Amino acid sequence: MQPVPIVDPDDPRVEAYHAIRERDLIGRQGMFIAEGKVVLNVLFAAKRYEVFSVLVLESRLAGMAETLSRAPAHVPVYVASQAVMDKIAGFHIHRGILALGRRGPEIGPDELLLNLPDNALVVAMVGISNHDNVGSIFRNAASFNADAVLLDQTCCDPLYRKSIRVSVGAALKVPFAYAGSAEALSQALDRHGFRQVALAPKGKHEITSLPPAKKNALLLGSEGDGLPPHLIQRLDTVRIPMSDSFDSLNVAAASAIALHRLWRG
Amino acid sequence: MQPVPIVDPDDPRVEAYHAIRERDLIGRQGMFIAEGKVVLNVLFAAKRYEVFSVLVLESRLAGMAETLSRAPAHVPVYVASQAVMDKIAGFHIHRGILALGRRGPEIGPDELLLNLPDNALVVAMVGISNHDNVGSIFRNAASFNADAVLLDQTCCDPLYRKSIRVSVGAALKVPFAYAGSAEALSQALDRHGFRQVALAPKGKHEITSLPPAKKNALLLGSEGDGLPPHLIQRLDTVRIPMSDSFDSLNVAAASAIALHRLWRG
Repeated sequence: MQPVPIVDPDDPRVEAYHAIRERDLIGRQGMFIAEGKVVLNVLFAAKRYEVFSVLVLESRLAGMAETLSRAPAHVPVYVASQAVMDKIAGFHIHRGILALGRRGPEIGPDELLLNLPDNALVVAMVGISNHDNVGSIFRNAASFNADAVLLDQTCCDPLYRKSIRVSVGAALKVPFAYAGSAEALSQALDRHGFRQVALAPKGKHEITSLPPAKKNALLLGSEGDGLPPHLIQRLDTVRIPMSDSFDSLNVAAASAIALHRLWRG
Repeated sequence: MQPVPIVDPDDPRVEAYHAIRERDLIGRQGMFIAEGKVVLNVLFAAKRYEVFSVLVLESRLAGMAETLSRAPAHVPVYVASQAVMDKIAGFHIHRGILALGRRGPEIGPDELLLNLPDNALVVAMVGISNHDNVGSIFRNAASFNADAVLLDQTCCDPLYRKSIRVSVGAALKVPFAYAGSAEALSQALDRHGFRQVALAPKGKHEITSLPPAKKNALLLGSEGDGLPPHLIQRLDTVRIPMSDSFDSLNVAAASAIALHRLWRG
């Protein structure tokens, strides 16, 4: 790996790093931006996604040596001064390193669920439209070795820059698929023999009394509306025992508790 | 409660709401800003802090009627158009309602711990210098009915605007005190007979095997460094069983799991 100096912010080799925030909003055709050393370590270790290039701050090059040594040998590493990097990105980059990755082909829920182990653990999100929450839930999913994540069509994008950052790279590690509507998502889990644990503030059973099952899917709804009524009616719902004098846990915190309870360590 | 229209952004009655972000940085002498309906509901219900005034968006006045009905009768309610409100605050206010509160006198750890019930639960933070984490940990503390929060001197301010917002008001509900150094904090818990559960990634015991105790304190360290070595050596440390192939849980998520395990429901 021979770093390539970039001195002109308009150098076509770094074109895809231009105006990062504006492109976050309009979306990147088939690509994503990962940022920061810890996230790039996960990106290179997980090897789920092809990496087009890396852009690193000149002054941080030495400190990133170990991270860069994990990148595939053919990936170009561009190096720029802080001034050039900030001009490229359109704002002050303080994490020192960025990577441009390629989104894989989208897979469907059946393809994702088909080859999971017999004691699989899946996290399913419905209506989670906040990048912090999606990122945090991916982080928790990775922390408890979830095998896969399913999202209904109203969830936001796990490969949005902020989701990846908040997930500390977990969004680049845990395989995921969009499963269409909430109903279609639940039916896919049914087809593959998953016990569906639907988390709800007024769930019928306490999560502490959940009997063991082989293949578990944890269903999480949005903070505002929770899971849709037709799922709540059809599925077994569980609640986390907690205070009745305070609003409630954040959905990511609730997912951590539920995943801890479903841990197959 | 008779709303008072504010038409001039420089009206002295709303002087304390000026340049909110700039004042966040330099600090408010003896005051704090709370924002949003849910947070103000907690502020008024908890009654821990005196409220100087409320500033509400004209177009949201009707929707805030129930919240405003919970405010003490003498609290002035100022009403402004979006244009005037944005000029006062210095940025676009989209939560529709702000309150100016008065910080109470600072109390010490002994004063805080002295009058807690026999089965008290305390959350103690050491070196948590991120407002999101402090806010989230307060939210979890309130969700599991913690009686109090202790902070060492290196933690950030629970009454910083963002901490309050992320806590969904819990920072205005759960009593807290600064306890000086990490060592002083731990000694205060000792003096008051608390079993100290120190959360650490390499903790000696699994949290699932924690024997019950009457008075529990959960000690949380920073994400980077964790708890200081002298505390780790002296205290019983517990870990949350999880993946060894991923970085680890966020400290707020870990606190949710630990508080769930210490729940006295």
